[in-house]
Amino acid sequence: MTTRETGLPMRVPAAGASLPERVEIWEVGARDGLQNEATVVDLDVKLEFLARLADAGLRTLEATSFVHPRWVPQLADAEELLRRLDRRSGVRYPVLVPNERGLDRALASGADSVAVFASATESFARRNLNRGVDEQYAMFDPIVSRARDEGLAVRGYLSMCFGDPWEGPVPVDQVVAAGRRLWDLGCAQLSLGDTIGVATPGHVTAMIDAFGAAGVPTTAIAVHFHDTYGQALANTLAALWCGVSTVDASAGGLGGCPYAKSATGNLATEDLVWLLDGLGVDHGVDLDALVRTSVWMAGRLGRPSPSRAVAALGAPDTGGG
Amino acid sequence: MTTRETGLPMRVPAAGASLPERVEIWEVGARDGLQNEATVVDLDVKLEFLARLADAGLRTLEATSFVHPRWVPQLADAEELLRRLDRRSGVRYPVLVPNERGLDRALASGADSVAVFASATESFARRNLNRGVDEQYAMFDPIVSRARDEGLAVRGYLSMCFGDPWEGPVPVDQVVAAGRRLWDLGCAQLSLGDTIGVATPGHVTAMIDAFGAAGVPTTAIAVHFHDTYGQALANTLAALWCGVSTVDASAGGLGGCPYAKSATGNLATEDLVWLLDGLGVDHGVDLDALVRTSVWMAGRLGRPSPSRAVAALGAPDTGGG
Repeated sequence: MTTRETGLPMRVPAAGASLPERVEIWEVGARDGLQNEATVVDLDVKLEFLARLADAGLRTLEATSFVHPRWVPQLADAEELLRRLDRRSGVRYPVLVPNERGLDRALASGADSVAVFASATESFARRNLNRGVDEQYAMFDPIVSRARDEGLAVRGYLSMCFGDPWEGPVPVDQVVAAGRRLWDLGCAQLSLGDTIGVATPGHVTAMIDAFGAAGVPTTAIAVHFHDTYGQALANTLAALWCGVSTVDASAGGLGGCPYAKSATGNLATEDLVWLLDGLGVDHGVDLDALVRTSVWMAGRLGRPSPSRAVAALGAPDTGGG
Repeated sequence: MTTRETGLPMRVPAAGASLPERVEIWEVGARDGLQNEATVVDLDVKLEFLARLADAGLRTLEATSFVHPRWVPQLADAEELLRRLDRRSGVRYPVLVPNERGLDRALASGADSVAVFASATESFARRNLNRGVDEQYAMFDPIVSRARDEGLAVRGYLSMCFGDPWEGPVPVDQVVAAGRRLWDLGCAQLSLGDTIGVATPGHVTAMIDAFGAAGVPTTAIAVHFHDTYGQALANTLAALWCGVSTVDASAGGLGGCPYAKSATGNLATEDLVWLLDGLGVDHGVDLDALVRTSVWMAGRLGRPSPSRAVAALGAPDTGGG
């Protein structure tokens, strides 16, 4: 099933609305970007990747995931990665934790912030978490409580917010209800994932408005778009108009969803930075250093970056400019 | 020189603004898409490409260019293409004409509408037209007059509207002055080209507003974005908010600018259709038929389509949906 959107008009931004002055880029390349790579990347390469991303000015670097190594062999080195990580002042290194055992490992490894990952749909909850939507909250409850007790900020990821490959369109109310449950558990931020990349801007504005109406402040919303159908940056622009100021992106566009039909992955951080630079929205990233990092990482992975901006800026200068 | 945009805030759409109910997609794949292909495509393939695009519901198919065959060998078959073209009812087949000799050839071949191509910058005018910006209008004047006398609509392309690889940023006033000259010559529509793909949404809204202030109605403006830095669809969304309802796009994202550093080309028609479908904006195109056409054409050209939507929809179904 290809889930297609139809007839979702985008509302006009409110009178007096403006784009945020600053956007926090939540860089997911080292975790979301790498987790679907078939070949295990050396820990030294991961550490250098994180160091280069920090050097490029990124201040939130999702570092790894404490899922069971059986499910994601690529991130089986999570403990050693955190232990050897050259933590930079002012940089956060959130990690994913699926359960209490994962939280134990993360805490023992010195994690400074954590994220749980929930599903907005029953089908994906069963496939990804091996339990139903309603059961997932019971699993997250003690994780969020304990992490907060330890003084850690907790992010709640919500997958399949705009469409599900098995269920098709996902009602906005269903997504808001799931997100509200995560919020009530104590998550400080919700990241709304368009896991299969089908969203369009009217759907995005309707979703963010609905979360606002349900009492989740827009300042606590992050957007996580995939570029499967080329919509990620247009959707980001729509979200910025709604007041969203945290945007997930992956250096070089690394990553993808194994349940989407193409290999196209996350919004590329470079394409986002080009947009924000143009609009005069502050973000703190040095685009050239970031492009060099993505070109270097593409070399390690043995294939070119899917980012348009990396392809253009990372190519040898061939005249004309 | 890489021309980068900085600090161009996007204005809020006017109160009561809405997206257009219908967008005319000006399909440039057969001309702009193919003209930079090194290997000459068989005329039979071009004709089948145009027939398939019409079958997919596109109603404006830029067919070829009557430039001198020495400059664009790919389109040296322009006369024979128009002669053998299976013209469909309700479909326009505009062609490019650089000079009076080109117009003579186009008229003799039965062209139903024509376009001239001008430059907003001195550097590109000299390189592309071998004359200065001010001299180009004298060349276009008799073309536009004669074409109008023949009852043909004339489009004016304006290149390098948002940045120039030799000159860097291009002032909005300079672009509007050039466009206004084309308008005064009698062009019925202006297509504003971001030839090197650097534009961002604030620049787009400022440009369209400035044309409006200079007396060129927004209904006569088309936008022509390149996806070099991944910005084309976000820019299109900004233009739609300004009231623009004609958008240039290329099936499968074919084409590119030889003066931009990457091979990334025009906005892909499929990515645009996905956006418009989602927003509920009418366009008349059958996305599946269009994707099949682009996959077929990619096969003829021997490389995959750069369109995200084509990559996703044209791939074999690999589970999950």
